[in-house]
Amino acid sequence: MSEHHYAVIMAGGGGTRLWPVSRKENPKQLLPLLGQETLFQSTVKRLENLFPPERILVVTVEEQAREMKQQAPEIPEENYLIEPAPRGTASVVGLAAKVLQRRDPNAGMAILPSDHFIRNVDLFHYLLKAAFEVAEQDFLVTLGITPTMPSTAYGYIQQGKPLDGEYKYPVYMVKSFKEKPDEQTAQQLLRMGDHSWNSGMFIWRADSILEEIEKQMPELGAALNIIGAAWGTPGQNEAIEKNWPSLKNVTVDYGIMEKAERVAVLPAGGLGWSDVGSWSSLFEVLLPDMNGNIATNAGLHLAHETHNTLVYGGGSDRLVVTIGVDDMVIVDTGDVLLVCKTDQAQKVKDVVEHLKKHRQETYL
Amino acid sequence: MSEHHYAVIMAGGGGTRLWPVSRKENPKQLLPLLGQETLFQSTVKRLENLFPPERILVVTVEEQAREMKQQAPEIPEENYLIEPAPRGTASVVGLAAKVLQRRDPNAGMAILPSDHFIRNVDLFHYLLKAAFEVAEQDFLVTLGITPTMPSTAYGYIQQGKPLDGEYKYPVYMVKSFKEKPDEQTAQQLLRMGDHSWNSGMFIWRADSILEEIEKQMPELGAALNIIGAAWGTPGQNEAIEKNWPSLKNVTVDYGIMEKAERVAVLPAGGLGWSDVGSWSSLFEVLLPDMNGNIATNAGLHLAHETHNTLVYGGGSDRLVVTIGVDDMVIVDTGDVLLVCKTDQAQKVKDVVEHLKKHRQETYL
Repeated sequence: MSEHHYAVIMAGGGGTRLWPVSRKENPKQLLPLLGQETLFQSTVKRLENLFPPERILVVTVEEQAREMKQQAPEIPEENYLIEPAPRGTASVVGLAAKVLQRRDPNAGMAILPSDHFIRNVDLFHYLLKAAFEVAEQDFLVTLGITPTMPSTAYGYIQQGKPLDGEYKYPVYMVKSFKEKPDEQTAQQLLRMGDHSWNSGMFIWRADSILEEIEKQMPELGAALNIIGAAWGTPGQNEAIEKNWPSLKNVTVDYGIMEKAERVAVLPAGGLGWSDVGSWSSLFEVLLPDMNGNIATNAGLHLAHETHNTLVYGGGSDRLVVTIGVDDMVIVDTGDVLLVCKTDQAQKVKDVVEHLKKHRQETYL
Repeated sequence: MSEHHYAVIMAGGGGTRLWPVSRKENPKQLLPLLGQETLFQSTVKRLENLFPPERILVVTVEEQAREMKQQAPEIPEENYLIEPAPRGTASVVGLAAKVLQRRDPNAGMAILPSDHFIRNVDLFHYLLKAAFEVAEQDFLVTLGITPTMPSTAYGYIQQGKPLDGEYKYPVYMVKSFKEKPDEQTAQQLLRMGDHSWNSGMFIWRADSILEEIEKQMPELGAALNIIGAAWGTPGQNEAIEKNWPSLKNVTVDYGIMEKAERVAVLPAGGLGWSDVGSWSSLFEVLLPDMNGNIATNAGLHLAHETHNTLVYGGGSDRLVVTIGVDDMVIVDTGDVLLVCKTDQAQKVKDVVEHLKKHRQETYL
């Protein structure tokens, strides 16, 4: 990887779909969901031998930064960019690009979510290298994930004609971005064969994305210019405090990518990617035993006529006994027990909404 | 009830079918399974206004006696008969009869398990009075339970011809006792219409049962004579220590009742009886909500698309959330979590066997 290439790990969010393990104070990326490492640690580790720690940036919020610095002490402290307040990924991506551009006018950057799983790390490395190659031609590049089912949980990217030129990996112009579809539409998109899932992984040169921001979100561009000029000077905090709060809260996908012209996609099959977006996704990520069962972070699990069932013990060492249980997710934290049919795991967020409405703060 | 009538509560056993709540040290009858009261306390309370506490005896083992005395302080201490070692109900019933006969040569006694549930207490009182009436005619009387389903969990009693004479309640000679049947046989017995479940509730005069013991189990009879003669004297303990250990371990049902001649049955319908013999039986005993769910001894239960599901919280105040759960039993003690399809609740005892075999003593 060129010395001008940087990784930017995005780690601000919360999310409720892995409740009761993920909580307001304990977001998904900071949890050892898949075993010993947290998702954030796995994300950092996945960059080993590709980026030296000095070229890995982490964008996060104040409340998470301390824990992250403990989980990944190899990343230099000055590489943590603290998002003053949540203003959507467009602002955050812009800030990271601005900071990187000041540091290295030739900077290229890979935007990577902190809370995803990728089984095939070698292919991931290969794809990133291929994507940077395309990005050097002033493209905004996105990694698409070849769908394995008609998921309604992801946005989709439709590819257009192949890019001219010789690249390491097939790359296409993006024809359109599509929001999360309903079941029927998802099946249609799958049949069309030219749609990928939007993974939220983007690769571009800092100056390419900043130019696009100037064009499409001039107010953000202006604010970034002021903040960028003050960055690293005594006026930095004042510049942020004055200009950040008024920014529009918008994602980079819909704020920038949808209307940009030079957008390319690498449709990646075989990555073994998952956004670990619900309890049911753990069946894709962890390796079930011969009965389809998974016990993780649990004490002893005694499975009696039990199939396709996940027991997530939250680190407690209690004995979990299941008898005649099929297709269930059992999550056991100290204060909450969740028993959920796997195909209804997305309803966990409704439960969290219910708890919010009834002010059951201790469980949030 | 005549002043010669006594209740004898049998409370020695253990049982594993309500694991993980019932444990070696915490047998079923001493647990508040159905709410505030323990099954033992409910059994005592059920005798209110029928027997004064002085005429209630409790036969139990040393390890349970202390807890029982605390749970039912109204029963005089001398009414606790301590079974020196488990030697089956025949021996225990014989000992109780012997002790009662010495106290009151005209004693009649009702043998009552300590761990059953009866919804209709008024009818229970009525039936006991009717049974004592029959017992005064030198019959060994048993309360049969009119079956409500082809259960394979109980022994069955076949009734013969009605007893001659005028009684408060229909009473029949017993034709035969049958061991727990298989499913097909149980359905057949139900169709025959002349079979009751064996509830383990017996009513007789002390001298009737002692006479039958002399006849059918002469060794037990002889031992009881020695122990009885020494009872209340300084030689009591020596008499027990010498004669008890060699007794045959046999139940009163099969050791005495099967071969006795003057055995009668009152087939009781509508008692709302349950032996609380497995987690699934709690659906008969407790009152489910409109979705068929029961939460007992639990903190908050949030039921989302959940039906016919029991949450037994073991007194913890944790939040239990169920989503898309049907026909399940969820039992949550401090150290064990059991999730079990209701119709497989009887397999809990297999799990306990497994734990025994693997020496997981802490969970037994």
